[in-house]
Amino acid sequence: MKYTEFEIISKYFKRNQKKDVNEIKGIGDDSALIKIPKNNILAISTDTLVEGTHFLKNISPEDLGYKTVAVNLSDLAAMGAEPKWTTLSITMPESNNIWLKKFSSSFFKILNKYNVRLIGGDTNRGSLSITLSMYGLLKKQIALLRSNASIGDLIYVTGTLGESAAGLFLLKKNIFIKNVNIRNYLIKKHLNPIPRVSEGMALRKIANAAIDLSDGLIADLDHILNDSQCGANINLNKIPISKVLIDNFQSQNYLNWALNVGEDYELCFTISKKNIDKLKIIKKKFLVNFTCIGYITPIEQGFNLFDNQKKIIFKKKGFNHFD
Amino acid sequence: MKYTEFEIISKYFKRNQKKDVNEIKGIGDDSALIKIPKNNILAISTDTLVEGTHFLKNISPEDLGYKTVAVNLSDLAAMGAEPKWTTLSITMPESNNIWLKKFSSSFFKILNKYNVRLIGGDTNRGSLSITLSMYGLLKKQIALLRSNASIGDLIYVTGTLGESAAGLFLLKKNIFIKNVNIRNYLIKKHLNPIPRVSEGMALRKIANAAIDLSDGLIADLDHILNDSQCGANINLNKIPISKVLIDNFQSQNYLNWALNVGEDYELCFTISKKNIDKLKIIKKKFLVNFTCIGYITPIEQGFNLFDNQKKIIFKKKGFNHFD
Repeated sequence: MKYTEFEIISKYFKRNQKKDVNEIKGIGDDSALIKIPKNNILAISTDTLVEGTHFLKNISPEDLGYKTVAVNLSDLAAMGAEPKWTTLSITMPESNNIWLKKFSSSFFKILNKYNVRLIGGDTNRGSLSITLSMYGLLKKQIALLRSNASIGDLIYVTGTLGESAAGLFLLKKNIFIKNVNIRNYLIKKHLNPIPRVSEGMALRKIANAAIDLSDGLIADLDHILNDSQCGANINLNKIPISKVLIDNFQSQNYLNWALNVGEDYELCFTISKKNIDKLKIIKKKFLVNFTCIGYITPIEQGFNLFDNQKKIIFKKKGFNHFD
Repeated sequence: MKYTEFEIISKYFKRNQKKDVNEIKGIGDDSALIKIPKNNILAISTDTLVEGTHFLKNISPEDLGYKTVAVNLSDLAAMGAEPKWTTLSITMPESNNIWLKKFSSSFFKILNKYNVRLIGGDTNRGSLSITLSMYGLLKKQIALLRSNASIGDLIYVTGTLGESAAGLFLLKKNIFIKNVNIRNYLIKKHLNPIPRVSEGMALRKIANAAIDLSDGLIADLDHILNDSQCGANINLNKIPISKVLIDNFQSQNYLNWALNVGEDYELCFTISKKNIDKLKIIKKKFLVNFTCIGYITPIEQGFNLFDNQKKIIFKKKGFNHFD
């Protein structure tokens, strides 16, 4: 059975989510209405996921529902904002009920996990594409801006890098691995990245600058360097690589994935040396590791990668949709 | 010459718009940051326009840039909100510089006209589709909700209805008209609808409920009736139709366009009889007409259309993307 646009919204996207006192009007009017608590500012991130560009054609509705939310949560995490509300615009070729049921269940599961309420959006017909906007709160003076890195800051990343890219290449059959458990583990790392929301919120009082790693460490860190007018020295041997990658792949592969492919949705942040003790305290609260990979230098020194003492020649490319 | 994603943003979408004190961070970080002035609430509307569904394949970039903004402004107008900021997600098959230049010029022209600042978004590759979110401000108690109509309220529409649909059918060659000036006038009414932003803001203190007319009067008014749990009596002879339509088309055509096709982006609102004098004062401020077309009844009486005294049988359909 096919549903109309309004039936789709009322059947799949009007859920009884936990009530929020700041939501004056959610789904169902010409616009949503929200109140921003005193002394808070609103962080707004928007990301579009297009079939064939941001996800493969055969992605499951559950994985797509999850990823749509995760990548936007990751943007807010990189500001240190607390996620609160979201609007969803979904364009699809037809109203397929089984697909919609699976997509919406997974979508609300991750929203509920992070206490985010769906307050509006629309459904349209066309090739599959999803635009999500995510709204978060934070105090004015403590947003983690890309432009706040200072010379001498240490550069950290959360978690390990490169596994998501390995999963992507396994899905695209660019690489092959015999062990099914490892294969599935890496694919899951690609499809279900964990946005570092609590970590971002914990870091906002002590870190200077932050970005989430979606396009690869080189391209993403380069945004911090450009916006902060700084250089950086990064030690390749310090980049956190999981045992799974080290045991199963060549180092030139996994370093390339970490540096140039991305999709890790880990945070990269800079922090003044005077805050290292505070960082140690924060680290204890999280299961994920924070690893120092280098430090910020004056702009004249540029962006340098070292393999121990040896300087490495590299290109700043990152992912470009219009390549 | 082709540009990368970041070059497109910096070349076409980073403009020196008039500074806004409430914008803490605009384009260029993981999210935008805005401050909401004291005692204000935030209205958020989101609309996706998809090629072939919301606009014809041969639409000019200028008309698309205009319409993208206009339809979202119209949503805010229907709440009585003052538009302030917007985020743009644009998906396109290639980075065509001539197209981008024309689109962005037209896009910023209408943004600047309504004092709206672009604070974020992204660019992607895929079939042409645009998602805009528009952010506006209003006081908490005076939003024009669909759910606030009361029995006895008079029902008004702004402007005239049906011309946009006539323009659409001329473009689609479903109808034909010899006179080139009239043809161009009607097509312009379709491509460049005027969002009733000031009218919506002026009405918020005196009207009870409002919606903008995008899917045809019947379907849109039906949202007010459902959400307010009311009925309505509408007199077809009162529906404002322009002289151009009356002189050039049959009444069954233009009434069908007004009732069932829509795309007029006029406001439909309900107002208590006690506020009629205040409405008369407000009307003087605007060039556009406000026309009373009927009144709100108890829900048991249903939604009725009259041709003078004669009750008309009709279907509540409106536009459905998944028909």
